[in-house]
Amino acid sequence: MLIGKVVGSVVATRKDEKLESQKLLLVQVHDHNNKAKDQYVVAADSVGAGPEDMVLYATGSSARQTRITEGKPVDAVIMAVVDSWDLGGANVYEKWS
Amino acid sequence: MLIGKVVGSVVATRKDEKLESQKLLLVQVHDHNNKAKDQYVVAADSVGAGPEDMVLYATGSSARQTRITEGKPVDAVIMAVVDSWDLGGANVYEKWS
Amino acid sequence: MLIGKVVGSVVATRKDEKLESQKLLLVQVHDHNNKAKDQYVVAADSVGAGPEDMVLYATGSSARQTRITEGKPVDAVIMAVVDSWDLGGANVYEKWS
Amino acid sequence: MLIGKVVGSVVATRKDEKLESQKLLLVQVHDHNNKAKDQYVVAADSVGAGPEDMVLYATGSSARQTRITEGKPVDAVIMAVVDSWDLGGANVYEKWS
Amino acid sequence: MLIGKVVGSVVATRKDEKLESQKLLLVQVHDHNNKAKDQYVVAADSVGAGPEDMVLYATGSSARQTRITEGKPVDAVIMAVVDSWDLGGANVYEKWS
Repeated sequence: MLIGKVVGSVVATRKDEKLESQKLLLVQVHDHNNKAKDQYVVAADSVGAGPEDMVLYATGSSARQTRITEGKPVDAVIMAVVDSWDLGGANVYEKWS
Repeated sequence: MLIGKVVGSVVATRKDEKLESQKLLLVQVHDHNNKAKDQYVVAADSVGAGPEDMVLYATGSSARQTRITEGKPVDAVIMAVVDSWDLGGANVYEKWS
Repeated sequence: MLIGKVVGSVVATRKDEKLESQKLLLVQVHDHNNKAKDQYVVAADSVGAGPEDMVLYATGSSARQTRITEGKPVDAVIMAVVDSWDLGGANVYEKWS
Repeated sequence: MLIGKVVGSVVATRKDEKLESQKLLLVQVHDHNNKAKDQYVVAADSVGAGPEDMVLYATGSSARQTRITEGKPVDAVIMAVVDSWDLGGANVYEKWS
Repeated sequence: MLIGKVVGSVVATRKDEKLESQKLLLVQVHDHNNKAKDQYVVAADSVGAGPEDMVLYATGSSARQTRITEGKPVDAVIMAVVDSWDLGGANVYEKWS
């Protein structure tokens, strides 16, 4: 999994029938030091993530292992909202600070 | 998923039998700011995308989760035509503007 | 899928038993403008591609969706010989020109 | 698989139900000469790895082949703690030296 | 598949139970001209490859299609020892020359 920030959402009316009512969020990838990278992914959301939330996303067939993405043409899913992480013993990100 | 623009199509007469009548589109990858990247993918089309359409495509085994790609040797599929997306609260792309 | 050119072949006597009589071709990746990239892949061949042919190849589990690669430790397959493709309305490659 | 060092951990309260009690570690990727790369992955832990441990991790659907990750939306798993490795006949890393 | 050279091996005592007695080799990736790249992978060995052997390896779920890797948390497997390959009609590598 990689860490990213929810920075937007994508609207699509004409889509595969399995994607009806599937929320698609734009996630900017962050590195382990919480620096934004010039890289993004559009991910399905299985946890109700909101704007600016730091999240974890999984890709590939693993993205279809949640109840809402099972069997769907979706290759990335947000499976957790990140509360905090540390690196080398020091806190890097704290949601509630 | 990533966002791309339909920029062309690929014609192939000699192909795996499962690919008969499978439309194959050339998609140029765009970044989250809608800037074209020097990167492309050839994708099957499950939604009837047209030239210049902005689309979402899924890769890997997820590309085989649509009715038209199931069980086929296809590793990328267009599964949505993008109407719009926003980034940090600002609209980046609007199909009908 | 990506586009590539068949530039060689790989010979291997000692190999997994499932790969007996499996032809393995060396494919150089080309970009959407038909410029050769400094990147290659060794792919199984499901369509009888020949030297210098422009081909489409699929990777990952999708590479195992042809009759000749099913269930085999093969992560790339040539599933089509390209006749032509266009980009932005202009022809980029034409096999028989 | 790639080699990495356990450099931290990620805490997430709101997550997919299948991830309850799943430990998520931050792993920095190392190259074959044991030099840290500017690349990381968040991985599930199937072996009880500790801080600073050098580990092997597997990605994609292979990450779901352990007892603790089976069927879960997890695309990376630590499946071994590395004791040592050699390169060209010379020892590169020795855990107990 | 990609071509690589066996340059070492990895020892791991604490590992997922499915990996007992699984040999793990360090493979340096080579390009199509047989030039070593600054890239490696740790791969399971299904063919009894030895030090300095040029090999082919497969990644992803395809790496689990050999008898010794089936169902295991392994995302790369050596499935062939390369005897030779040619590029544009010229021999690039010959094992027995």
